[in-house]
Amino acid sequence: MTTPAPAPVLELGADVVELTRALVDIPSESGDEKPLADAVESALAALAHLTVERVGNSVVARTGLGRPERVIVAGHLDTVPAAGNLPARQEGDLLYGLGACDMKGGVAVALRLAATLTAPSRDVTYVFYECEEVEGDRNGLHRIATERPELLAADLAILMEPSDAGVEAGCQGVLCADITVRGARAHTARAWMGVNAVHRSAEVLRVLDTHVPERVVIDGLEYREGLSAVAVRAGVAGNVVPDTCVISLNARFAPSRSAAEAEAYVRGLFPADDEFEVTEVVPGALPGLDRAAVGSLVRFLGVEPRPKLGWTDVARFTELGVPAVNFGPGDPVLAHTAGEYVSVGQLVECERKLGDWLR
Amino acid sequence: MTTPAPAPVLELGADVVELTRALVDIPSESGDEKPLADAVESALAALAHLTVERVGNSVVARTGLGRPERVIVAGHLDTVPAAGNLPARQEGDLLYGLGACDMKGGVAVALRLAATLTAPSRDVTYVFYECEEVEGDRNGLHRIATERPELLAADLAILMEPSDAGVEAGCQGVLCADITVRGARAHTARAWMGVNAVHRSAEVLRVLDTHVPERVVIDGLEYREGLSAVAVRAGVAGNVVPDTCVISLNARFAPSRSAAEAEAYVRGLFPADDEFEVTEVVPGALPGLDRAAVGSLVRFLGVEPRPKLGWTDVARFTELGVPAVNFGPGDPVLAHTAGEYVSVGQLVECERKLGDWLR
Repeated sequence: MTTPAPAPVLELGADVVELTRALVDIPSESGDEKPLADAVESALAALAHLTVERVGNSVVARTGLGRPERVIVAGHLDTVPAAGNLPARQEGDLLYGLGACDMKGGVAVALRLAATLTAPSRDVTYVFYECEEVEGDRNGLHRIATERPELLAADLAILMEPSDAGVEAGCQGVLCADITVRGARAHTARAWMGVNAVHRSAEVLRVLDTHVPERVVIDGLEYREGLSAVAVRAGVAGNVVPDTCVISLNARFAPSRSAAEAEAYVRGLFPADDEFEVTEVVPGALPGLDRAAVGSLVRFLGVEPRPKLGWTDVARFTELGVPAVNFGPGDPVLAHTAGEYVSVGQLVECERKLGDWLR
Repeated sequence: MTTPAPAPVLELGADVVELTRALVDIPSESGDEKPLADAVESALAALAHLTVERVGNSVVARTGLGRPERVIVAGHLDTVPAAGNLPARQEGDLLYGLGACDMKGGVAVALRLAATLTAPSRDVTYVFYECEEVEGDRNGLHRIATERPELLAADLAILMEPSDAGVEAGCQGVLCADITVRGARAHTARAWMGVNAVHRSAEVLRVLDTHVPERVVIDGLEYREGLSAVAVRAGVAGNVVPDTCVISLNARFAPSRSAAEAEAYVRGLFPADDEFEVTEVVPGALPGLDRAAVGSLVRFLGVEPRPKLGWTDVARFTELGVPAVNFGPGDPVLAHTAGEYVSVGQLVECERKLGDWLR
């Protein structure tokens, strides 16, 4: 008989670096967040100034001070799969380990604020959620928005995704599509009796190779679009002229384009006689720097906002009617890399700055 | 307890159409030729004018009349996998079924000749062999050439592969190669930080799409070469710029090119900075119409020789120093199709013409 491992305990009194290390050392790959969600729930439930609720493996903790403004501070608990990068280890100013950058550093900052700000100047809703790294219908924020939408009511959401301790505003949209180029099979000994779908795909690849993505400026921020083939599939047998070639695209588009506009734009780049099927499209989110709550935060933090190029749940908050920005420790380029890390300096800076704004 | 099915028996006294039907109805997918080889061996062993030998699931039967010339009449016993095309069925002049065209019709003609020509004008070696439709080192002719080369000594080989009851002379060579185009991975949200191997493959596909294969005339026969992409493989994940794209090629080249010349020619068509790896190359066989034994047969049959475009074991005989041609019933274009058939007219014509030449 084996004794179950003791449930992990989070000590919110530890400093933000120790707390990040502790979070990294509780594995929480998407779908396996329960031990970490349990630890977060227990730690927050011990704090008298917060009301804690659980939705699946997401935890929501709120102050209820009757302030005129309410701010959401949110972070996802899950990580991509481990890549030989556990447990956490510190080298000088850098803390390495799975999720250190994306985004247990940000979660640690949020937990520290939740523990220490007993009477913030704005009411705060802390959201620690599951399944951000996987398909959208498993996303914890999506589930909360569906089952308990009142928990996400706020004037501003700060998503603590890695943004190098700066503000990344808005986010780009994503369009995935398959282009299917058709031909006709034939034996390769008589190739001229068929039509080679791979050869016919030369034009699609030429378009991709020569396309110059646009750079769209919104509220002074430059969103750099992208258009990438992420897969090609063709092949029947070693001596058969293939009759089908499928090129899968992943396009990133500026938040000024609607999903329909993005689709029309990308579709229009390619030969009209090939099949073009959109497999997924999610719109981006405008930076919203002109909205009062966002402007106030940006001015207070004293940082120059940058555009967010990847898609984040900022878009989901925007869809819910809550202006949102990314602000968190960690270089976003390191997300999902085996060597990801977060710097001690950014952890401390984010805790201090956000604490000062909420104090 | 189940009773084993009785071993199939071939009645060589039946006409060539009935014999073809009987052969089709004994399944013999490559690797499973034993029941058919047993039936062929038994039927031939009953004929006093033939000496019968067995090598694996190949059967060799020879006359020993001391004639100044010896001719091989050969056909493979195996077929590609069934495709809902068993048992055989006749519709008017056409006999349908797995292998009817490739090449149980030809085997039936050879068996009829073996049974009826008790004292041919030339000594004859009949070869019924296994595993032609699979990789070359399993090929029954290859095995006989290795273990019993003396059985394949002859002045001429007639391979009864489907050639529309005409003579298809020589055969083209085959070159298979993989072109690997390299790039560098990146997240699609920052695609410009990587190099997309699929986009870079545009030039390879352009070469394929615009290449005009050569038409090489040898002994008055036009060999039409071919260059086909048969597969493309690329893709890491839905949001990753792929760092590798592999394009698999299948080239058919005229028998006037050596394997080395074919490789240099094909390699030279593509960008030099992409990796080019030859995965298989087999030379073709010159038509050899200037060789006495071949010329005599062609003149006797009174047919206009045509070039063979696919690779056949004619090339193997040529390598062994035995001039060889393809001459058999069935449209070669129907080989390996679910709807393959052979016409009664061609079965009868091939038996009559070859019989007349050997009588």
